[in-house]
Amino acid sequence: VTIADFTERELVMRIERRLPPAPPWLLVGIGDDAAVVEPERNRVEVLSVDALVEGIHFDRAFVPPDAIGHRALAVNLSDLAAMGAAPRLALLSLALPSALPIADFDAIVDGFAGLAGRHRTHVVGGNLTRSPGPLVIDVTIVGTSKRRQALTRDGARPGDELFVSGTIGAAAAGLRMLEMRARLATADAAQDAGNRAHRETGDASAASVSPGVERCIERYLRPQPRVRLGTLLARNRAASACIDLSDGLADGTHQIAQASRVGIQLDAQKLPIDPGARAWFEARGLDPVIESICAGDDYELLVAVGPRTRSRLAAVARHGDLPLTHIGVCTESRAVTIRREAVGGVTEEAVPSGYSHFRAAEGSSLDEARSASEHVEGPRSR
Amino acid sequence: VTIADFTERELVMRIERRLPPAPPWLLVGIGDDAAVVEPERNRVEVLSVDALVEGIHFDRAFVPPDAIGHRALAVNLSDLAAMGAAPRLALLSLALPSALPIADFDAIVDGFAGLAGRHRTHVVGGNLTRSPGPLVIDVTIVGTSKRRQALTRDGARPGDELFVSGTIGAAAAGLRMLEMRARLATADAAQDAGNRAHRETGDASAASVSPGVERCIERYLRPQPRVRLGTLLARNRAASACIDLSDGLADGTHQIAQASRVGIQLDAQKLPIDPGARAWFEARGLDPVIESICAGDDYELLVAVGPRTRSRLAAVARHGDLPLTHIGVCTESRAVTIRREAVGGVTEEAVPSGYSHFRAAEGSSLDEARSASEHVEGPRSR
Repeated sequence: VTIADFTERELVMRIERRLPPAPPWLLVGIGDDAAVVEPERNRVEVLSVDALVEGIHFDRAFVPPDAIGHRALAVNLSDLAAMGAAPRLALLSLALPSALPIADFDAIVDGFAGLAGRHRTHVVGGNLTRSPGPLVIDVTIVGTSKRRQALTRDGARPGDELFVSGTIGAAAAGLRMLEMRARLATADAAQDAGNRAHRETGDASAASVSPGVERCIERYLRPQPRVRLGTLLARNRAASACIDLSDGLADGTHQIAQASRVGIQLDAQKLPIDPGARAWFEARGLDPVIESICAGDDYELLVAVGPRTRSRLAAVARHGDLPLTHIGVCTESRAVTIRREAVGGVTEEAVPSGYSHFRAAEGSSLDEARSASEHVEGPRSR
Repeated sequence: VTIADFTERELVMRIERRLPPAPPWLLVGIGDDAAVVEPERNRVEVLSVDALVEGIHFDRAFVPPDAIGHRALAVNLSDLAAMGAAPRLALLSLALPSALPIADFDAIVDGFAGLAGRHRTHVVGGNLTRSPGPLVIDVTIVGTSKRRQALTRDGARPGDELFVSGTIGAAAAGLRMLEMRARLATADAAQDAGNRAHRETGDASAASVSPGVERCIERYLRPQPRVRLGTLLARNRAASACIDLSDGLADGTHQIAQASRVGIQLDAQKLPIDPGARAWFEARGLDPVIESICAGDDYELLVAVGPRTRSRLAAVARHGDLPLTHIGVCTESRAVTIRREAVGGVTEEAVPSGYSHFRAAEGSSLDEARSASEHVEGPRSR
């Protein structure tokens, strides 16, 4: 049974059934030409839109439908978190292949509605259309912030310290684990069709038994946007600049540096790389630092903190439930670099500056990382 | 030169260059994690999202890129018009095939920005991503309305008169004209490849010389949303219910009837069918009434008016620049019918109830009309 067996109205009703009762500020909800909402008093509004496109941002072969719905909202919630805004409402626009099973449709909506409920984000409207190609899920989110408390990227000053929440690298490792499992499953299926040889060794067992594998996969599939941390940072006026790591730590540092007109020096030894991800990358001969900073999908917050507000950050850290790790400093120089201890001394390399062409932009994290690594400048020993 | 030759940042800058200076209420614009806006005082907010998908809502073979951008915003402005809301801001989310020429990208944005400027709608943010399939343009719009002035679909009462703005059917005819031209051009090209026979007669000449053809095509390509009419209706409290005709008059009457729990009786003889469209349909043996009410893309407003507010509607009509035509009445009975004069007397038929399955839903106007006609009940003579 696919969505083609249902009318648009029936599909809309399946969405409505998965939503909580309308809040009092929602004056006109789903079902009219547009939604009508009462604005929140004494607040400014924070708006963002983000799209997930099948084949670019997710692969239905190994991303279950509830995770597609979850991630589509998570990327938007993460944008609000980076602004220090409290989420309020969302609009959900779906372009769906006719062959999409109705169970997958329901699961996408469940994943979306579940995360929305946990962050008190009401779905006030949306759009359903067919797609002759990929599944596209486009989400607009609106949140609120007190005046002059919105966190931007452009307030960092030389001397400000840089912190990152949680850990990095897990989502990137999780994506690769899923890709590897999918390849092995395909290879197994192909072999099964011929002769039933044993392929229970090597990568397959490594993927299924390594500690932290399931955590990495979960971080990729169902990222937890740092909404509470963002609002705590904003209310405490603890940050001079903030960005989320949807495009990776390397990209985030460049964005803050460019917007704030500062340089940034990261310290590789301090990076809170997820232990499972680190082990997994090392086991494959990959550099955990480069893999972790170039990959996206972490949805942690990168925060610049001025010397006078360090105590406020400490207060935020005490009230929050996430570690905040000191990873670098903003500098007068406009260079964005990373210091690493190496054989023979400390090196300072340019942080990869991100993808350059739209051909590779907005691709999966791995595409971005590969593209980014073409632009790494050579290490400068000193 | 295609978009693949540019970075995402360069493409964003090309969009920004096509936008007017930021209004004072835009506190943080394009370039941060989200936009921050100051709400308008003493207003409620009206939000809508709509997507145009290549191959479903438009065909790049005969819809020029500026018209794609124009239409993507027009459908959203029309939703606000139907609510009586004044547009304020938009978010533009584009999923783009890598092979899209950069000139087409610029033209899409020009078409969008041009219409936005004429309706004082500021683009505060958006999203760019690649698409492995069709071009998808997803637009979120936010407008404002005074409290208790938003026009909904559910306020019509038995005895209320129904009016429609402007004319209907032109966009449906325009789409067919464009499709026919495209088919003929393809056939010509195929013939040219073999022998150069003359094919300058028949449909081709009819399509190019009939009066009103260019007007119909323009109505399809660059619909003018009835924003001014909608806000006038709202301010004058002239309407008991309102909807836009994006999905056609037949669908609009059903939507108002269902939401308001009334019946509706349309009078076929009163329908303001565009003369060029009527002539074109008749020349092809098609019923102009059925073609005009089943097709979408007109973006006129369908308005129910109570007996005590007829004079307010007259005032709106005087101040507006569009004719408002009386086309029917709301009834106690829940039937939605259309009266027609026929040989042997007056007939009253059920109004086609619209497409039933998502397979055909949200397709091109013609798909909808064809699907809808499967559900037409037989005419009831009386």
